[in-house]
Amino acid sequence: MKAEIIAVGSELLLGEIANTNAQYLSEWLATCGIDVHYHTVVGDNRERMVEVVTRAQERAELIVITGGLGPTEDDLTKEVVADLLGRGLHVDQPAYDRIEAFLKTRERVMTDNERKQALVIEGADVLTNEAGLAPGMSLHADKHQYILLPGVPREMKRIIADHFEHLLGKETIKSRTLRFFGIGESALNDRLADLIRTARNPSIAPYAELAEVRLRLTAKAFDERETLEMLDTLEQQVLDEVGTHFYGYGDASLPAVVLDRCRKAGLTLAAAESLTGGAFASGLTDIAGASDVFRGGAVVYADAAKVNVLGVEQTLLDEQTAVSRDVAIAMAEGARALYETDLAIALTGEAGPTSNSGQAVGTVYCALAQASGTQVLELTYPAFDRGMIRLRSVKDAYFMLLKNIGHSDVMEES
Amino acid sequence: MKAEIIAVGSELLLGEIANTNAQYLSEWLATCGIDVHYHTVVGDNRERMVEVVTRAQERAELIVITGGLGPTEDDLTKEVVADLLGRGLHVDQPAYDRIEAFLKTRERVMTDNERKQALVIEGADVLTNEAGLAPGMSLHADKHQYILLPGVPREMKRIIADHFEHLLGKETIKSRTLRFFGIGESALNDRLADLIRTARNPSIAPYAELAEVRLRLTAKAFDERETLEMLDTLEQQVLDEVGTHFYGYGDASLPAVVLDRCRKAGLTLAAAESLTGGAFASGLTDIAGASDVFRGGAVVYADAAKVNVLGVEQTLLDEQTAVSRDVAIAMAEGARALYETDLAIALTGEAGPTSNSGQAVGTVYCALAQASGTQVLELTYPAFDRGMIRLRSVKDAYFMLLKNIGHSDVMEES
Repeated sequence: MKAEIIAVGSELLLGEIANTNAQYLSEWLATCGIDVHYHTVVGDNRERMVEVVTRAQERAELIVITGGLGPTEDDLTKEVVADLLGRGLHVDQPAYDRIEAFLKTRERVMTDNERKQALVIEGADVLTNEAGLAPGMSLHADKHQYILLPGVPREMKRIIADHFEHLLGKETIKSRTLRFFGIGESALNDRLADLIRTARNPSIAPYAELAEVRLRLTAKAFDERETLEMLDTLEQQVLDEVGTHFYGYGDASLPAVVLDRCRKAGLTLAAAESLTGGAFASGLTDIAGASDVFRGGAVVYADAAKVNVLGVEQTLLDEQTAVSRDVAIAMAEGARALYETDLAIALTGEAGPTSNSGQAVGTVYCALAQASGTQVLELTYPAFDRGMIRLRSVKDAYFMLLKNIGHSDVMEES
Repeated sequence: MKAEIIAVGSELLLGEIANTNAQYLSEWLATCGIDVHYHTVVGDNRERMVEVVTRAQERAELIVITGGLGPTEDDLTKEVVADLLGRGLHVDQPAYDRIEAFLKTRERVMTDNERKQALVIEGADVLTNEAGLAPGMSLHADKHQYILLPGVPREMKRIIADHFEHLLGKETIKSRTLRFFGIGESALNDRLADLIRTARNPSIAPYAELAEVRLRLTAKAFDERETLEMLDTLEQQVLDEVGTHFYGYGDASLPAVVLDRCRKAGLTLAAAESLTGGAFASGLTDIAGASDVFRGGAVVYADAAKVNVLGVEQTLLDEQTAVSRDVAIAMAEGARALYETDLAIALTGEAGPTSNSGQAVGTVYCALAQASGTQVLELTYPAFDRGMIRLRSVKDAYFMLLKNIGHSDVMEES
């Protein structure tokens, strides 16, 4: 099956936003074994929209259109597709009721434009939109399937999550994402080469993210139980190979898993940061509810701060420089005492672009202090990118924590 | 002039990356007064590339193609365009020399594929690529102009920066970006309504970014001096209206301007962060060379940390809660003493999703301590988004600093 993704919206052609919807949809369709041959972006212009959809009919079987379902005069997608197929539009009552209920909370009556959002193409399956007012729709005509989705990414994603597994046929499609850290994409591909080459259904697709890799496992079958069993079996095969690098499912992030794991173990955490300058703490506190685990951290960028705030000895700094194993240990133990926590992480290193300590740029020490003692990890990153050295240091520190709290209760699938 | 932007690359159709190049180019072309009518993405497939370029010839005068200029067998853009125009390819000697010099540093000899990167279409103007090995090119044929650019965003942007102002005709095009904080896009549009409506050359275009707005001023004329004078005049008109919200030019960021301004004034800085949890410090330390200004900061998420680390009085916390004007003051003064700096910022507030202090979610206090005393800003944000409350608090704190170090020496244009 060949697909084309069409995004409608003049804001895309003006460069106000990027067409991230096409990326999201492409990954989903690839997951489902559908080849996307083209993305097209067109403005809110009837004539050009007709041309683009007509062209897509010539070269694709599945046509996914995002945008142009809203309430304004510029929103023409439904009208254009209905006209091309010689179909009418009618009010979808559940969508109408949702709009009416929404307006009632604002003490407003419905305008004609707002009512327009409840119109759907005759014969289409309506895809309810739990994140907004304009529903999506799916319809078959001649040899084509059309899927119309709102342009707001949050709404589009919600509709896909709610409907997509039934959109593309009678089979049930389920996918599961496994997240890995501490292994590069090519190393992971090598370790899983046989599985990736032979797995068709369920299939495996790797995606590289910032210093991480995620694997998407996808199974198709005629009932949900069967797809889940297929995914369970494949997941076990994957984890037998690279389980030591696995840290969570779906949208889980390393700091979220750290907080979850500490919370379950009843452990509190503090940080002492030099080169990462608050990024380790910030990643944790980005997550609501961090405060019951994370008590705080000291950003000690200047050497004087390491001495005054964390009690690192000046002689140690003089003898070994701030970028050293022993200073990392002293920082971690200082933070653990200052914040009165069970665990404390310290990060010190050379982020560059030039070295102040004499150590090579990219050298990082990560210490973990706990009641049983303090351990240190020496890390070496390529020296070319200051931001990447900081980012990877923070993630390595999270992963060091995870390895030391135990693997037994990885975060549940979301 | 009508334009179409074509991106070539199967990785785009697989959803591995988003087509951010098209966004960047669209903004540039809009700036130059050129209407972009379509974006198209096509895979590394000769037949489909021919179809897409042929279609673009029918509907656009300017055809910008990104991607497919690299060394692999899959990279077909030059070959496809040359074939369609009935032109040959020849080696561009400067590009060849660059590749050879690069390989020499790696002690390697040139392969045929690597040599392919030095090939350019006959009759094309070569656009040197200072950020990579494959040059871009611009050529005119029949009624069309073709601009071919590498797909790597960094290389594409560099070529545009180096060549774009001469690419689109005999006129010189110059643009200048002014950055604003503390004013929304619609308020800024209102204040500048007359200017934006009447300004054609030079023109003004506003772009909303995370809690910021940037204005792009663009002038076209037949020599550079004239464009710069036009930009200077328009800039002055803009600043007369909304100058109090202006903080820098081009790619300047708030923390970069803070560091620059502090450095010039010989001031050192520390931070005490509760709700922002290290994000203020992390934004500063992201920038190379922060250490001569920013000494460090205390992340004091738990109340006990506010007491133990910063010396905030427990009775104050009991009486006023952590989200209060007086605790913000005590935190700022505690950080200033602990880190021995000239300035210290403190941030405390309710980021939500629920309130622990009894204060409404979205209430934030930002204190600035200096030798002359401590001032506090009370901020109120919409309660709907924890991440946005944290982000805006951090940016408001940077802006509070800027306002207090003085406006006389805003960062020079980059």
